[in-house]
Amino acid sequence: MLREVFSIFTCVAWVGFAIYLSPWMKDISNEVEAYNATTFQYPVPLSTHNEEHTRLMQNLQRSNGKWDSNHPRHRLLTALYGYTSYKDKNLAEVNRWRNLYKNVSKQQRTLLESTVHYTRKLNTIEHLLDTNNELAKSIVDHGLWFYNISQSELDEFIKESESQKRSADKTSVSQGMKHFVRDWADEGHEEREQSFGCILKSLAQTPRTTDRPLRVLLPGAGLGRLAHEVDNLGGFDVTMNEWSTYMNLAYRYVSSRSVPNSVPFHPYIDWWSHHATTEDLQRSITFPDQVIRPSSVLLIEGDFTTVFAEHTGQYDILVTLFFIDTARNLVTYLETIHRLLRPGGRWVNLGPLLYGTAPFVQLSLDEIVALSESIGFEFQETDPSVGDITVPGLQVRGLDVAYGRNARGLNKNAYQAQYWEAVKR
Amino acid sequence: MLREVFSIFTCVAWVGFAIYLSPWMKDISNEVEAYNATTFQYPVPLSTHNEEHTRLMQNLQRSNGKWDSNHPRHRLLTALYGYTSYKDKNLAEVNRWRNLYKNVSKQQRTLLESTVHYTRKLNTIEHLLDTNNELAKSIVDHGLWFYNISQSELDEFIKESESQKRSADKTSVSQGMKHFVRDWADEGHEEREQSFGCILKSLAQTPRTTDRPLRVLLPGAGLGRLAHEVDNLGGFDVTMNEWSTYMNLAYRYVSSRSVPNSVPFHPYIDWWSHHATTEDLQRSITFPDQVIRPSSVLLIEGDFTTVFAEHTGQYDILVTLFFIDTARNLVTYLETIHRLLRPGGRWVNLGPLLYGTAPFVQLSLDEIVALSESIGFEFQETDPSVGDITVPGLQVRGLDVAYGRNARGLNKNAYQAQYWEAVKR
Repeated sequence: MLREVFSIFTCVAWVGFAIYLSPWMKDISNEVEAYNATTFQYPVPLSTHNEEHTRLMQNLQRSNGKWDSNHPRHRLLTALYGYTSYKDKNLAEVNRWRNLYKNVSKQQRTLLESTVHYTRKLNTIEHLLDTNNELAKSIVDHGLWFYNISQSELDEFIKESESQKRSADKTSVSQGMKHFVRDWADEGHEEREQSFGCILKSLAQTPRTTDRPLRVLLPGAGLGRLAHEVDNLGGFDVTMNEWSTYMNLAYRYVSSRSVPNSVPFHPYIDWWSHHATTEDLQRSITFPDQVIRPSSVLLIEGDFTTVFAEHTGQYDILVTLFFIDTARNLVTYLETIHRLLRPGGRWVNLGPLLYGTAPFVQLSLDEIVALSESIGFEFQETDPSVGDITVPGLQVRGLDVAYGRNARGLNKNAYQAQYWEAVKR
Repeated sequence: MLREVFSIFTCVAWVGFAIYLSPWMKDISNEVEAYNATTFQYPVPLSTHNEEHTRLMQNLQRSNGKWDSNHPRHRLLTALYGYTSYKDKNLAEVNRWRNLYKNVSKQQRTLLESTVHYTRKLNTIEHLLDTNNELAKSIVDHGLWFYNISQSELDEFIKESESQKRSADKTSVSQGMKHFVRDWADEGHEEREQSFGCILKSLAQTPRTTDRPLRVLLPGAGLGRLAHEVDNLGGFDVTMNEWSTYMNLAYRYVSSRSVPNSVPFHPYIDWWSHHATTEDLQRSITFPDQVIRPSSVLLIEGDFTTVFAEHTGQYDILVTLFFIDTARNLVTYLETIHRLLRPGGRWVNLGPLLYGTAPFVQLSLDEIVALSESIGFEFQETDPSVGDITVPGLQVRGLDVAYGRNARGLNKNAYQAQYWEAVKR
């Protein structure tokens, strides 16, 4: 129902829509069908966003269901607590390093101070933490405003959490902030090119008209760069979905920035491994590399398997990027993807098979293909330029893709991510 | 002192020494200077090995120092406890997976059973655990014999550990056993080629005579393949060192095998992520790909920074492969490397900078170079074929190297490992 309102709106909206391809998409831009587009201005489907905002606010009400750690407001407050604790948590780690340094003999310390100025390095990092803390505070402030939560409610929640020994999650905050690099900084360019390339190429080649834009859903969208890139191709009506409140807070923040590269921070100061130089470790990154039009992509927050209960058969394309292995119940993920697609609709996947700590099932690639076929998917031939077939006889291609990598770092971790396209029978 | 005895012995020993290059060394074999070698038989410097064995046995005495978790015998018994617990620990994990599977709905289970036979997969894994447990038991049996420890002492130790809630270390056992693949199975070929290649090439080109073999020390040698490859080049007197009792038990076991590829096991059944097929997950690997002459390389067990107290200036070459970032005190590692080399001796390094959980200092590459120069090393120009210079102005080259990777797995984790050669001033 919600989608139908959006659809009517967007039929009008797309008429004046412009193709916008980011610089790294240049190589495939010639394959995108042309629109008679003259301007970046286009009517925003505000009513849909407003409707979703209303639903979100209702969901966040304390009175909505049981008040426990799974409650959407509880989860949001937990993430706000995490970002609020940025400095405390990271300062504690630097202090741990200072204490570890005391185990070095006096003579060795003299040598370290004269050659690499180790204490100065520790001091500098402590100073740079302030810049990152400014960002974390801004994320919290914007989040409080966006989700209409008072500072006093958050303060109360933090007090309660601390009295119950629930510690702020340093890792999730760090991961959320590192995603600014992956999704919205120049430095993430190569990583995005690797992982978005085959998906965008496939979507760009999909026949579509401005009269009836194709509805695309991206679950597990993180900070939303791919969703916005799909939107930029034109002719798509894009919905993204993310469960992590850490990611959602970061996305709400980055999409509120109106000046390119206006936010500086130091993404690599919290992990001292794999650095060629200390300058690399301490360097500043700015974002967003381009201003985001949040109104052009609809973010629906929540659990992918339940939040789209009323969207059965409403999507032409589902794009899962680094997503399916995040499932506790992988079968439910696959069934949901199938249910949300219209008959003949297409599922495009790229990602690794790295299961979490307590997945209900852990399947090999061949088993995922067999299961997906049973659920009602038909795997399609894909472009050999994507990569080689991983298992003879299966229409799945492997390609090496990095994720959240420090571009100047000395670790080269990557996945042989698996790419496929499957059609709902 | 100990080394001088060895030296006299080996002068004789090397005369009849044969060059043995494993198949993957073929491409560099033409650069190795020729020895007039006709046979693989050569006198073994037994007295040195015997001396070291005596020292080891003395160290392992309970009466040697304080009896706590740092005592060599305590550490050895802990590792024996780990291997003894292989089946219990892994069975517990499979049972956890069985219980997680119960969270899947009845309808989904029906689908999973008909398409991917999930219960059969769990049952098969449980069956294959028995093969791995046979290996773990053999490692324990050989260890008890080699270190002259009675089963009843181990039983008593295990009883005591369990009563004190000290759990067996599943991860260290799994890592130890996976090293059979990295070091001593055909499957590890490519990984060894990547990481050993530049080191062996450099050593093979080093002028040496059969009269005075060069003394090489490899700390952190793991299961010893590189040490034995250096030995196979001829003209080297090789000592390896390893601190991990899990590794040492595995090395003692593998070097006791007299039939190539006679030990089968399933190295990948304990982690279900990143598999293309379930067949890959369950496949059997055999080792050793070649029979090891343990007497040709001397293993000195223990802490690198203390166990070589009497070896100052005794080595011509020190090779550190994936080693320096394992230090708690990196400065002490560098000082020890410097101390053990003779003036003009060479340090050859390849490895990442992945610091552990509580290192006293964490240095960037540029800082390691500066510190090493202060300690008394001069970095040398190296062959551009190794890789590109990592930081302009520093004689350090980066090359992508995997470590402990499943050759058929879908994860492609690698390090941009750093290669350098430095001479002791």
